[in-house]
Amino acid sequence: MIRPSGRAADQMRQVTLTRQYTKHAEGSVLVEFGDTKVICTASVEGGVPRFLRGTGQGWITAEYGMLPRATGERMQREASKGKQGGRTLEIQRLIGRSLRAAVDLKTLGENTIYIDCDVIQADGGTRTASITGACVALVDALRSMKKRGAIKRVPAVQMIAAISVGIYQGVPVLDLDYPEDSAADTDLNVVMTDKGGFIEVQGTAEAAPFTPQELNAMLELATAGINDLFAAQLEALAD
Amino acid sequence: MIRPSGRAADQMRQVTLTRQYTKHAEGSVLVEFGDTKVICTASVEGGVPRFLRGTGQGWITAEYGMLPRATGERMQREASKGKQGGRTLEIQRLIGRSLRAAVDLKTLGENTIYIDCDVIQADGGTRTASITGACVALVDALRSMKKRGAIKRVPAVQMIAAISVGIYQGVPVLDLDYPEDSAADTDLNVVMTDKGGFIEVQGTAEAAPFTPQELNAMLELATAGINDLFAAQLEALAD
Amino acid sequence: MIRPSGRAADQMRQVTLTRQYTKHAEGSVLVEFGDTKVICTASVEGGVPRFLRGTGQGWITAEYGMLPRATGERMQREASKGKQGGRTLEIQRLIGRSLRAAVDLKTLGENTIYIDCDVIQADGGTRTASITGACVALVDALRSMKKRGAIKRVPAVQMIAAISVGIYQGVPVLDLDYPEDSAADTDLNVVMTDKGGFIEVQGTAEAAPFTPQELNAMLELATAGINDLFAAQLEALAD
Amino acid sequence: MIRPSGRAADQMRQVTLTRQYTKHAEGSVLVEFGDTKVICTASVEGGVPRFLRGTGQGWITAEYGMLPRATGERMQREASKGKQGGRTLEIQRLIGRSLRAAVDLKTLGENTIYIDCDVIQADGGTRTASITGACVALVDALRSMKKRGAIKRVPAVQMIAAISVGIYQGVPVLDLDYPEDSAADTDLNVVMTDKGGFIEVQGTAEAAPFTPQELNAMLELATAGINDLFAAQLEALAD
Amino acid sequence: MIRPSGRAADQMRQVTLTRQYTKHAEGSVLVEFGDTKVICTASVEGGVPRFLRGTGQGWITAEYGMLPRATGERMQREASKGKQGGRTLEIQRLIGRSLRAAVDLKTLGENTIYIDCDVIQADGGTRTASITGACVALVDALRSMKKRGAIKRVPAVQMIAAISVGIYQGVPVLDLDYPEDSAADTDLNVVMTDKGGFIEVQGTAEAAPFTPQELNAMLELATAGINDLFAAQLEALAD
Amino acid sequence: MIRPSGRAADQMRQVTLTRQYTKHAEGSVLVEFGDTKVICTASVEGGVPRFLRGTGQGWITAEYGMLPRATGERMQREASKGKQGGRTLEIQRLIGRSLRAAVDLKTLGENTIYIDCDVIQADGGTRTASITGACVALVDALRSMKKRGAIKRVPAVQMIAAISVGIYQGVPVLDLDYPEDSAADTDLNVVMTDKGGFIEVQGTAEAAPFTPQELNAMLELATAGINDLFAAQLEALAD
Repeated sequence: MIRPSGRAADQMRQVTLTRQYTKHAEGSVLVEFGDTKVICTASVEGGVPRFLRGTGQGWITAEYGMLPRATGERMQREASKGKQGGRTLEIQRLIGRSLRAAVDLKTLGENTIYIDCDVIQADGGTRTASITGACVALVDALRSMKKRGAIKRVPAVQMIAAISVGIYQGVPVLDLDYPEDSAADTDLNVVMTDKGGFIEVQGTAEAAPFTPQELNAMLELATAGINDLFAAQLEALAD
Repeated sequence: MIRPSGRAADQMRQVTLTRQYTKHAEGSVLVEFGDTKVICTASVEGGVPRFLRGTGQGWITAEYGMLPRATGERMQREASKGKQGGRTLEIQRLIGRSLRAAVDLKTLGENTIYIDCDVIQADGGTRTASITGACVALVDALRSMKKRGAIKRVPAVQMIAAISVGIYQGVPVLDLDYPEDSAADTDLNVVMTDKGGFIEVQGTAEAAPFTPQELNAMLELATAGINDLFAAQLEALAD
Repeated sequence: MIRPSGRAADQMRQVTLTRQYTKHAEGSVLVEFGDTKVICTASVEGGVPRFLRGTGQGWITAEYGMLPRATGERMQREASKGKQGGRTLEIQRLIGRSLRAAVDLKTLGENTIYIDCDVIQADGGTRTASITGACVALVDALRSMKKRGAIKRVPAVQMIAAISVGIYQGVPVLDLDYPEDSAADTDLNVVMTDKGGFIEVQGTAEAAPFTPQELNAMLELATAGINDLFAAQLEALAD
Repeated sequence: MIRPSGRAADQMRQVTLTRQYTKHAEGSVLVEFGDTKVICTASVEGGVPRFLRGTGQGWITAEYGMLPRATGERMQREASKGKQGGRTLEIQRLIGRSLRAAVDLKTLGENTIYIDCDVIQADGGTRTASITGACVALVDALRSMKKRGAIKRVPAVQMIAAISVGIYQGVPVLDLDYPEDSAADTDLNVVMTDKGGFIEVQGTAEAAPFTPQELNAMLELATAGINDLFAAQLEALAD
Repeated sequence: MIRPSGRAADQMRQVTLTRQYTKHAEGSVLVEFGDTKVICTASVEGGVPRFLRGTGQGWITAEYGMLPRATGERMQREASKGKQGGRTLEIQRLIGRSLRAAVDLKTLGENTIYIDCDVIQADGGTRTASITGACVALVDALRSMKKRGAIKRVPAVQMIAAISVGIYQGVPVLDLDYPEDSAADTDLNVVMTDKGGFIEVQGTAEAAPFTPQELNAMLELATAGINDLFAAQLEALAD
Repeated sequence: MIRPSGRAADQMRQVTLTRQYTKHAEGSVLVEFGDTKVICTASVEGGVPRFLRGTGQGWITAEYGMLPRATGERMQREASKGKQGGRTLEIQRLIGRSLRAAVDLKTLGENTIYIDCDVIQADGGTRTASITGACVALVDALRSMKKRGAIKRVPAVQMIAAISVGIYQGVPVLDLDYPEDSAADTDLNVVMTDKGGFIEVQGTAEAAPFTPQELNAMLELATAGINDLFAAQLEALAD
């Protein structure tokens, strides 16, 4: 089996995390997984949704979008269509759930952090890149809250990262790009914490069903890949 | 550990599949997983979405809804809100993908089968009950197509069924009802074929992350439960 | 003249009212007029619309929907279309007005009762079946309010019921099913109180205009039919 | 009983029908029932809705709107709210049904006539004024079609007119203005043909239910009033 | 060059301003620029948008619409389409900005004045006619506020008026009607105060770009035309 | 007068045009006017809007958006709000009109070029930066059409560029950034061709009205600035 990308089965694409990518947001990161490029911002606002008012607890929520020509064929702009599609809603719900697992929301006070992930160039894996980049933007936002006194200390964050794995021509492979994803039999997105636990595991058989053995092989590949992502996050945050 | 429902960890709720539940649809099934009750219909229409026109291939798509008072507190009707929520879209995409795996779409000719799953009473597990019931409705619809000559033979169907499993107070348990689901640490929805392969595996850590060992234990429970569902489907279809 | 249904001109279909049909709602009734089947729930919530705040008065409002395949041909789901059609809005306004006539709203305190009528199988007369069934669900909801102390006593309810009548091949007939309704010259929906007064009278000439004499003949038929419905409601509530 | 307007119980307001009120539409009428003023236009377009294509038959459809400050308090503009309310949809469906009864649609060829009724000043009875005015605009549109050869002859039109009646302080009264309508016990809208038949009868008990005797008294008043409207229409069309 | 309208290059159409055109609004003006006819109302409501609450300052906002058959071909009703088009939003933003320049908003107290401009017949120049008529309606609304004591004195109003100019067959012309506008090379809308300053200048090259010289020639024409409009406004307000 | 930016009155910000910024679009340019950064893509698709079918002529249309946190305070995402605001529609209409002036649409054949301008960081002047950058992306798209044979030769393009000017503390200044724009008395956006003609001139008095003299001074500043932009475009295209 030779991957369209020419990479080894367990080889990730080049990953880059650029902090302070735009100037207004409390946290702003450009994350690149090869040719997939996503701007992730974390914005802090006072107040929480109605169901949390008076609880002293904060909230983290996420929105996701793609520029119309982030893809090979231009997609219609969701703002002009008048609604977000099912895929968009599914992805932003996943990002929000994943990042809420990163922080003890009680330590935020009644503040909301909005995560915005906007794909400016897509080549597969946009949701996992988004989660990985947004976690770094979240840390920057928490630090800025601490700096201006909105919280007393930066809450302990359990770092979160995500990668996709799949079965390509019968072989488990790591970090699918778009041509690989389109041709894969199975696509599995994995979100983990830096303590080694799973936050989300979402596998879909695109063609043939997959076996428990294949699932375990994919999870091992994902675990290894995500460990590299944690290293990249730490390095970026150390600058 | 004692489950709120009093069931053993590996014990499913009573499952009932009532065919020909309403009279107009080509397939119409009331599926009950304990107190969860869903009407699943399969409707056949000539024609396919634009991207399939001229290919000779058919299509299966799904929609999901809840009656406003299917739940403990009344939810706002999506039709009057003017849009379907993210949870609804996520579930109906899952149902559609799962059922498309049941049939070789090429054998349908240029026909579309609409699956509608409407929850009339909810007590946890509505999406897995929907998939399990809809697969029976789909078979009835295919038989009706054969009967009126729209297709030459009923295509070989790979039966599909689904169940939820979770970690409740540290113990893997099968088929969570609403009180269990609300209190579970992890929630995993599993869709399988009667050949034993996975179609979808979607696990979410609600509180603590889960380990590979816990994942495997849940998948084993799910596999056993789904086998019982296949038996129930066959029995219903044999009537 | 022989009706498609074979019924006598003044003969209603079999009417069934099943209380406590679903478990969550304060009132929940399955109403059947022959093959027309509607789930009617009454849900109690504290608070009233803005225009009633501070008046001490309650409110009753209604929503109506059909499952996509309640009908012979599948209709598009209103939630996915993004709006309720004119027919739906017209019917739910009629149901709401009718039920508000049943109770002195001042006796409710600042509570709102939501009536939801969802047609699971349609065969003509869904709006009149909805009103008839919803009135029973309303009584159950009022009793539950009394039970949990939200109101001191169950307000005196003027029972409300409704039936359709029409001119079929020149002859006034009672309780049209779908084939009769489609072929009728005139369709008249009548809502009455158990004191014998009219709440709503809505007649439409589908083909030929109708005369005052025909109108009176239809109203007499309707009055007789509605009296039978009051008997069925009382019997159901007596269980 | 003295009506707020000071009119006798069977006295209509001053009715005016001004043809060619605006210059672009094939038919354009300003109809005034006292202080109620509605611009009714009839616009002819080639083609019919999908369900009529190829049948050789035409179609008539109606839309209704109010200028935001046609009323005592400004109402939000439906175009900026993003949807038409239930009252609007109910009224425009009534107007459309009524006018389709005026003409044998087969004589139109595959053409659609759009009726637009826009209330510029409201003082009760806007829907009945709209129907009365729109029927005149419809005749003008048919004449213009004949003139430019789109149809061979102006189809025989059954004139349609409409009026509201009500029970005010126990007395049946004709043609309610807004203060009367707000205080009436019952409100009944009646649409008739110039042959004396009913097209629509829609009565609603606002406060106390109404009796068959009251209904008949109101229908008699309405019949007399509508006859005056037919005279006014004929006079306008004779100019 | 001969204009389609036969007017001289610097000749405006007949302008008419009819106050108290409808009875409910605090200010109500029918403005006519030749065959262009717009109903402009000014409605006063207590309260201001959220961003002004507590500031003691008032607000003026505008909405614009066209009756579907105000134009040569019927346009789809925006209320039934479910949204206002870009042209509509652009025009109503222009009207609002222009009128806010007429009054010192601080003198209004926390009140909002809604300007509604509804075109009942269109023949070019609807936006400039709207601004010119709405300013008169605004003055009437302010006077009514004074009369009922909502404000102590009528704030000094800087009268605002607007006209379109263009380049038609190479020649600058004043006040384009629809046939002229459709054939013009450039279209320029100018809003001025009666002190001689510009509030808005919006020029668009429809065909060939325009030069600074042409721009100045058009602005001179506009200034002369607007002075005539100020005279017409004063005359109307003097009645 | 000292500008908040410290620039001279006639001094523009640093302008950068980066071609091939993303990989999928036929034309893709990152344009920077100081801290204002916009991604402009030009996408070519076969076919034209309905009103041009069969004419052999092409079309250019534009859409504009801002990332939610492109600004100092996070704005709600238009896709999740369900509609584009008036400002967005106004800007994208301006961009589309301006670029359609750049090319003779007849030379495009029946192809549509979609211009997407997405602001990733805003600091004033986003619409003028968008037009300036999009014109370069358009040229690249035309060249790519030529390359793959969709058109025989690259049509002669009239380059288009745009800048904002204003009156700040009584002094005309060039290229306002956000703090300057917020405090300016007047804001004027100017779009020109490289032949020196005006395509659009849009001036708004934010505080005091402006005089013809001020207008002319601003236009002169704008003309000088736009000439620098043409130089930057040419240099970028020469690479």
